Amino acid sequence: MPGHDIPSQAWTWDKPFQLECGGTLPSLRIAFETWGKLDSRGENAVVVLHALSGSSHAFSSDWSSQGGWWEGLIGDGSPLDPRKHFIICSNLLGGCYGTTGPSSMDPGTGAPYAANFPQVTTGDMIEAQRLLLQSLGVQRGLTLIGGSLGGMLALQWATRHPAEVRNSIALVAPGRSGPQAIALRSVQREAILSDPDWNTGDCYTGRFPARGLALARKIGMITYRSADEFEERFKREQRDPRPHFLEGQFEVQSYLDHQGRKFSDRFDPNSYLYFSRAMDLYDLSKDHASLQDAFGALEARVLLLAVNSDFLVRPVEMLEAHEALLNAGKRSRFELLRSVHGHDAFLIELPQIREHLSRFLPDE
Amino acid sequence: MPGHDIPSQAWTWDKPFQLECGGTLPSLRIAFETWGKLDSRGENAVVVLHALSGSSHAFSSDWSSQGGWWEGLIGDGSPLDPRKHFIICSNLLGGCYGTTGPSSMDPGTGAPYAANFPQVTTGDMIEAQRLLLQSLGVQRGLTLIGGSLGGMLALQWATRHPAEVRNSIALVAPGRSGPQAIALRSVQREAILSDPDWNTGDCYTGRFPARGLALARKIGMITYRSADEFEERFKREQRDPRPHFLEGQFEVQSYLDHQGRKFSDRFDPNSYLYFSRAMDLYDLSKDHASLQDAFGALEARVLLLAVNSDFLVRPVEMLEAHEALLNAGKRSRFELLRSVHGHDAFLIELPQIREHLSRFLPDE
Repeated sequence: MPGHDIPSQAWTWDKPFQLECGGTLPSLRIAFETWGKLDSRGENAVVVLHALSGSSHAFSSDWSSQGGWWEGLIGDGSPLDPRKHFIICSNLLGGCYGTTGPSSMDPGTGAPYAANFPQVTTGDMIEAQRLLLQSLGVQRGLTLIGGSLGGMLALQWATRHPAEVRNSIALVAPGRSGPQAIALRSVQREAILSDPDWNTGDCYTGRFPARGLALARKIGMITYRSADEFEERFKREQRDPRPHFLEGQFEVQSYLDHQGRKFSDRFDPNSYLYFSRAMDLYDLSKDHASLQDAFGALEARVLLLAVNSDFLVRPVEMLEAHEALLNAGKRSRFELLRSVHGHDAFLIELPQIREHLSRFLPDE
Repeated sequence: MPGHDIPSQAWTWDKPFQLECGGTLPSLRIAFETWGKLDSRGENAVVVLHALSGSSHAFSSDWSSQGGWWEGLIGDGSPLDPRKHFIICSNLLGGCYGTTGPSSMDPGTGAPYAANFPQVTTGDMIEAQRLLLQSLGVQRGLTLIGGSLGGMLALQWATRHPAEVRNSIALVAPGRSGPQAIALRSVQREAILSDPDWNTGDCYTGRFPARGLALARKIGMITYRSADEFEERFKREQRDPRPHFLEGQFEVQSYLDHQGRKFSDRFDPNSYLYFSRAMDLYDLSKDHASLQDAFGALEARVLLLAVNSDFLVRPVEMLEAHEALLNAGKRSRFELLRSVHGHDAFLIELPQIREHLSRFLPDE
């Protein structure tokens, strides 16, 4: 079973956890890692929020010296500095790297929840992390930072719990998911659901929908990158020049195959389905007259980092959030990263991101 | 078995037909429709070239009064006028609407070719149509017009057989397929190939990969439309508001489901695979030092119509062809259609297209 292999701490909440859309989890387990120490005022916490495929391992840590998914963004002298900040990253609720999710045991049946896991939302992911933070003595002055799904969480958290959040930094994340992103994610989910080995989610013992999960990842990868990057990297190079569709292969296909295989070796198809749907459901303007109205109570300073070549979350969608924030009288800053890497630039363009963070984060 | 149900004429070539990448078809059958009459000089022919999912039925005709896929672009007073032009549209080689393709009987086995059909190329599609035109007495002064795959054919034909083509009109078609388009098509093919009911292509008698073909179509549809169009049409409207990924559905998903179902009721998954791969293989600069060099012998006047919101064939890719043509000293005109409909604008923005055709086509 992929996942679960990231060394981390684990924290347990032994009371029922009520979910936003109904359903209750009898308890929670949250895998997390920390860097630095909480200061005496308890106000130097930075919460790093991962994206769909991430884990608590944002950076190398006491638990693993292996590089994390945001390695290079933290360190002495970096805007995220363990000498100054208490940095926390936890695996999100519904995930497959140590936190309660579809692979967890359902005490009612003694078997993994699989597709019987209740649908979690971005709101649930936030509330679960707030419990963890409470246990760590962190309750205010938060700096939140994340990309993609993580960026959605950073914005939603600041909107739901204004008093807790001092800075909210969202990379490649809109104020609500639009129909094209929903469409693109829905076909990825269907690739998994169509795999006979998905087996209604019962993929923890025998059959595993590796092919469906890999196909979902491939579709995803195309939306995370850009046409210009593919042109630069692959052009029309062929891996196998035979003409027939069953035999020939362009280099870009070989790259996607590799990405798909690598991913299906490490990720839980059910976590993918739950996270993907949670992103579709994400809409800060829900239950509000408008996005501007939704931001009404927000207190945090907000930094929105879009990417010029991002096709999945177009800069115009982040500008919509930015304008709603400004119209609501909030402190929002919008910056455009110049990159050929599309959506994934949030994982790649670290010098640019560091620069924006340095300018945005007050030197406390 | 979907396909084959478009009333049309059929023409048969009873000699072997040699394919570009090797392999021979023992004979050819080409389904086609015509509008208007060939003039005495034999130089008023307009060849309409269909896209991946098309057929010979571009317009209502003597064979069927039902509207065609380009209905509204032909007619008395239109730039494509049966009173002036002899208009021909044939189902492309490899297709499923009456022309020889993977569903045809392999005389060697007495069963449909299925995936044993040789890989056809855009070049083969052109040569097959040239035989048909010859039989109709049409050999020069051609006006070629098509969108997407059809536009590729219009450009390649004018490049390969310069003396035959007077006007080449390509909508949403580049000079070569780029790696992102290849990537997007390859995941569509994989959706079909992953369906257990594809059954190595043997889907003419019992099992039929309806789900895989529908998924391929859905992925395709997202690339044929645009984020802005989806935003306008669907916003975040929900068809089924239940939260769980197995139950809830946004309107955009319902739309894609409908498109997928409709398509898998009418199309041959194998034709899809062959056409899709043929589009990947399309590269006018192949065997040339450059695209400019490839256009060296071209004589036709060229009109390139791109769409500002096209994500699959970005305007910049058509500009590349346009500049190569100009640098080769050719008569090329590039126009940008303004549309929210993305790639599919070539099927939708008929008034704009008519206007460009009127300006481009000399009043003979």
